[in-house]
Amino acid sequence: MRRRTPAESPSKLSDVARLAGVSLSTVSNVLNHPTRVAASTRTRVEAAISELGFTPNRNARALVVGTTDSIGLVVFDLKNSLFVDIARGAQRRARGRGYSLQVGSSDSDVEQQAEHLRFFDAAQVSGLILAPMHDAPESVDRLRSHGRPVVIVNHDPAEANVCRVLVDNEQAGFLAVRHLIECGARRLGIVAGRRDLQPVELRVEGAHRAARESAVPVEVVEYPVDGLEPEYGDRMGSRLAALDRDERPDAVLAVTDMLAMTIISRLTAQGIRVPDDIRVMGCDHNTAAWGGAIPLSSVSLRGEALGEHAVDLLLDEIDDPAGHVHETITIGPSLHIRESTVGRPTATPPA
Amino acid sequence: MRRRTPAESPSKLSDVARLAGVSLSTVSNVLNHPTRVAASTRTRVEAAISELGFTPNRNARALVVGTTDSIGLVVFDLKNSLFVDIARGAQRRARGRGYSLQVGSSDSDVEQQAEHLRFFDAAQVSGLILAPMHDAPESVDRLRSHGRPVVIVNHDPAEANVCRVLVDNEQAGFLAVRHLIECGARRLGIVAGRRDLQPVELRVEGAHRAARESAVPVEVVEYPVDGLEPEYGDRMGSRLAALDRDERPDAVLAVTDMLAMTIISRLTAQGIRVPDDIRVMGCDHNTAAWGGAIPLSSVSLRGEALGEHAVDLLLDEIDDPAGHVHETITIGPSLHIRESTVGRPTATPPA
Repeated sequence: MRRRTPAESPSKLSDVARLAGVSLSTVSNVLNHPTRVAASTRTRVEAAISELGFTPNRNARALVVGTTDSIGLVVFDLKNSLFVDIARGAQRRARGRGYSLQVGSSDSDVEQQAEHLRFFDAAQVSGLILAPMHDAPESVDRLRSHGRPVVIVNHDPAEANVCRVLVDNEQAGFLAVRHLIECGARRLGIVAGRRDLQPVELRVEGAHRAARESAVPVEVVEYPVDGLEPEYGDRMGSRLAALDRDERPDAVLAVTDMLAMTIISRLTAQGIRVPDDIRVMGCDHNTAAWGGAIPLSSVSLRGEALGEHAVDLLLDEIDDPAGHVHETITIGPSLHIRESTVGRPTATPPA
Repeated sequence: MRRRTPAESPSKLSDVARLAGVSLSTVSNVLNHPTRVAASTRTRVEAAISELGFTPNRNARALVVGTTDSIGLVVFDLKNSLFVDIARGAQRRARGRGYSLQVGSSDSDVEQQAEHLRFFDAAQVSGLILAPMHDAPESVDRLRSHGRPVVIVNHDPAEANVCRVLVDNEQAGFLAVRHLIECGARRLGIVAGRRDLQPVELRVEGAHRAARESAVPVEVVEYPVDGLEPEYGDRMGSRLAALDRDERPDAVLAVTDMLAMTIISRLTAQGIRVPDDIRVMGCDHNTAAWGGAIPLSSVSLRGEALGEHAVDLLLDEIDDPAGHVHETITIGPSLHIRESTVGRPTATPPA
């Protein structure tokens, strides 16, 4: 590998991508998750890295300049562990490349989101990662006009002109319902609220697709709730418990783990057994919802990977604003099967 | 209540405390948790608030000035939900008083902690709340020399000259073991590592006190581990499972929930029943450790209250650096009983 003096312009992720003839996300994968990349592609990317003397670690520069650059991350709500995972993945990756990262939690409030963005703008961070509730074009434009690149995470904005890192929420809903059908579900309830939120709507769509594509016939009934807070799950649990046995779904997908957990609490309190009488599944792998009496099956949205990829795209734009090409990276979710759909593990022998 | 013009100097928490003849923490409690304060004291504080025209809500000022002041919070590790709770409590309280709050997670690394402190210093925040691993006197002194007050949370520093908000970790260990003894434990194992960390050491001390003060004789054996990461719990679980039945403790307190959860996973995988053969209890109410097959009993360290009180003390010092008197507020933990110590809830009728 060539040696470079600190004064020489460092190679960028996009240079590596160009030379190797692959996308930015492929380079990012070679750095973060090499096993996911075909060996031949990996070899090509590694050759380009070697050729250009690219180093993803900018700590050396930080040591020279005596300061660490920083990235602002503004998330929806830290109470949902998806956003803690995004923050951890982003911070680890940022640090590996010589940046520190600070976090603002919007607490599900667009006004607080705007306050955090103003703070990070005034603090002159090098760039921002935003996990918003809705499109926030004015905010993004203002930050850009101040020279700060922005990457959007976990939301697909209408405007094309920005990098985004998404988890496949449609696939999350699909995996959840396919699992329920494989467990034997034939009358499926979908509990959803806040369908104005993109991830919710996509999970519902994926759930319906799994039912449509099922080899066995599956009846689907939607059970709308007015919000995602625990009280709505509690009320829905009462409503499901009150149904006649032949009306009641044999399995329920709740679009968030918090809804699923509170539904289970209410069902079991009213003598309905989970999963024996009704299987219940969550869909965002939120550790805060694991506190119920019955461990919850769910779908992980792989927040740490979201955070890592977001930092790679952001730093590429920071390093080369003119040459940077916006990209969308979509990550696949993963299924986590626990007691609420398949019953108690049998490793423990009976008393 | 008197009306004040925006130009008039606003009343401060410390003015209210002085006029009412109570401590700052009492005023803070009247604002945050009025039911915890004796009615007569509450009346006196409320009269002082009324007399001085004190308003804890500085949003009006923010609207006039067109900006929101901000507070930096630097925590140990967001993966532990205690620190998410501290951040949520602090942010809610800060916002109620006209401040935004951003978070840096040190990821259990003193170097990252220092980077976050430098960032917030350069970003000119009004003050900082620090939940450190160890004493950080140089950092605190440097921030102070730049005119930024600091409040220490969840750690009791050697230096006297700073406000601190603590949870009673000794009491947490005490409550956990008293609960285990009430459940019938007579041969108690204490699993602890990283006793250089103050909260860990205090929990162990409290655990021993509960055994000493027990009306029935309780034998205590310490089982040291080399760290708090999941792999140490896993190894300890194997070690406990390998013990002869008459040697094995009938109950175990692990100093963190993550250790407790991994001990349970390993024990049950090896056919030891929890809680039937051995009761297992955690001690920091970390939601990330609730993912095991058996819901975990634990002790909540009441992070949201820690965060609220920290903001009150910080803003008092920001508002009146000269008149401010440093205080220590200690909050009591609370017991959460779940399946790992008392068995499965019986609301679900048997099949």
